Amino acid sequence: MKIAVDAMGGDHAPKVVIDGLLRARDEYPDLEFIVYGDEAQVKPLISDDTRITLVHTNEQIDGNDEPVKAVRRKKQASMVLSAQAVKNGEADAVFSLGSTGALLAAGLFIVGRIKGIDRPGLMPTLPTVDGKGFIMLDVGANAEGKAQQLLNYAVMGDFYARDLRGLKNPRVALLNNGSEPHKGDTLHQETYQLLENLDSINFIGNIEADQLLKGVADVVVTDGFTGNAALKAIEGTAKTILKLVKGAIYDTGIKGKLGGLLLKDGIKGIASTFDVSSYGGAVLLGLKAPVVKAHGGADADAVYYTIKQIHEMVQNDTVGKVQSYFARQDDDLA
Amino acid sequence: MKIAVDAMGGDHAPKVVIDGLLRARDEYPDLEFIVYGDEAQVKPLISDDTRITLVHTNEQIDGNDEPVKAVRRKKQASMVLSAQAVKNGEADAVFSLGSTGALLAAGLFIVGRIKGIDRPGLMPTLPTVDGKGFIMLDVGANAEGKAQQLLNYAVMGDFYARDLRGLKNPRVALLNNGSEPHKGDTLHQETYQLLENLDSINFIGNIEADQLLKGVADVVVTDGFTGNAALKAIEGTAKTILKLVKGAIYDTGIKGKLGGLLLKDGIKGIASTFDVSSYGGAVLLGLKAPVVKAHGGADADAVYYTIKQIHEMVQNDTVGKVQSYFARQDDDLA
Repeated sequence: MKIAVDAMGGDHAPKVVIDGLLRARDEYPDLEFIVYGDEAQVKPLISDDTRITLVHTNEQIDGNDEPVKAVRRKKQASMVLSAQAVKNGEADAVFSLGSTGALLAAGLFIVGRIKGIDRPGLMPTLPTVDGKGFIMLDVGANAEGKAQQLLNYAVMGDFYARDLRGLKNPRVALLNNGSEPHKGDTLHQETYQLLENLDSINFIGNIEADQLLKGVADVVVTDGFTGNAALKAIEGTAKTILKLVKGAIYDTGIKGKLGGLLLKDGIKGIASTFDVSSYGGAVLLGLKAPVVKAHGGADADAVYYTIKQIHEMVQNDTVGKVQSYFARQDDDLA
Repeated sequence: MKIAVDAMGGDHAPKVVIDGLLRARDEYPDLEFIVYGDEAQVKPLISDDTRITLVHTNEQIDGNDEPVKAVRRKKQASMVLSAQAVKNGEADAVFSLGSTGALLAAGLFIVGRIKGIDRPGLMPTLPTVDGKGFIMLDVGANAEGKAQQLLNYAVMGDFYARDLRGLKNPRVALLNNGSEPHKGDTLHQETYQLLENLDSINFIGNIEADQLLKGVADVVVTDGFTGNAALKAIEGTAKTILKLVKGAIYDTGIKGKLGGLLLKDGIKGIASTFDVSSYGGAVLLGLKAPVVKAHGGADADAVYYTIKQIHEMVQNDTVGKVQSYFARQDDDLA
């Protein structure tokens, strides 16, 4: 099993990328890596290059690049070369901490879409109070949603929840502005009908955004625009409140005392629960291979967990199963 | 100045409604109330009926009623009678804790829209870390947004921020899935262009949902579907995290100690900062009179603050100013 790694994406590249990668390499003997990046920066970080092939490149895509143009023009960029490795059959999956837009473009133009999938969906794993978490898609690969796309997100999310999260009958819900079936705009009303009529999934109906963290659904289907707003509102609110709570603790003067130290650990635990990156990366589901993005600010731990997640996706052939499903649908229609 | 009050809406009606009302009545000598509700329940709560006229009705609209039908059929419902009082010129504003959908229907069919406004927007005041807060609209009056409607929300929000929040040059932002001008779906790209070309407001560009609580904008314009998701995601996340924090404090055993008591107050303060109802009610902007809704779970304090807010809106003639603005636009086009 080979993973193509873009070593140059993210805020702390290539250090955190290589540190996380080495930990995953040591844990999984079946895992090999092709690492794309600046040799001068990357090589010194690899103390032991067992099952690691380093391919030098100077070019990289940054946040200021227009995604589609960058992927087309910067043919030697570490992200583009990683996607190319999958296309050429040299690797099974792509991993990057770089720009979501560019990774989506590289996924679409180089790795390619699964037949039957119009647009891939970006799918992170998010926390719930019971610690089990849920997946939500699309959170921003696609700003303009269509009902058929949302239906495909439901099917792909269901496969992922069974395969990767080990759920036998994942509860699939539609993010909407009310719980009743008739709620929402035309897009969400149409999507509700499609999901209701899809026998292969366990559709439990609409979910409102204030219920997301309660763990009432395993797969939440949403259009990329609304999903993006909900995800960012959750992240921003969690960060803001925890900062205020830390301030309140500081103000009491109990910070250094025994209870204060316990509390500090408790709050740290809550903070890490709501730190989305600790749940692995966000998967671009709908492409012909796992293309997975970790947060730009991810640390070596987050990189390790994301590689672990990719390892499982390749091992279970999740993408292959999704591909077969949509091929069967196609045959049924033909 | 007369406010028509639906005494029967909300989870703790009519008790909290009357308690909050009495406090506002005692504070504002220019304020009179027409209270619609069940005399047997309401009358005993009014210890002193100075400037309060109680109008008995048995009928009321509840959460299970289909809003439009209910407003059309339940002609004696306390909410319908309140709206009717404004239509007949007997009152200047409507206040209710009842169903948002029904209040919107009553606003549209009985109070009526301002000429030039296609759909009213629901506008709450939300917290920011600096304690100043911001307004956001639409958060759910209208599931299907159009660019022209969002433009109108910006204009109305700007009037409100100047008039009620005392801001000289309110910063108006568009909730979008990225900060760059070209971001978003067609609706948000179109809206960006319209806002950019509107000289009367101080448009500062796009804002992402994770920035909302930071206080970077005074008026946030959004379509009702996205706004609803963002608002509920904020509410749900705040509630969830504060619950976890309280649990963490409890686990340390410092709860009863001196620092713990201080901390309890600190956390309470944070909780009340993020309790949306403490910022007054949500205004249905775009109707011919102030129609304001407090949260169904609001307490007497929230009722008091909402009546205070209505008092200011009527005193400043905010709705009149909005109405004149759109009448002028109409004249300019004619």
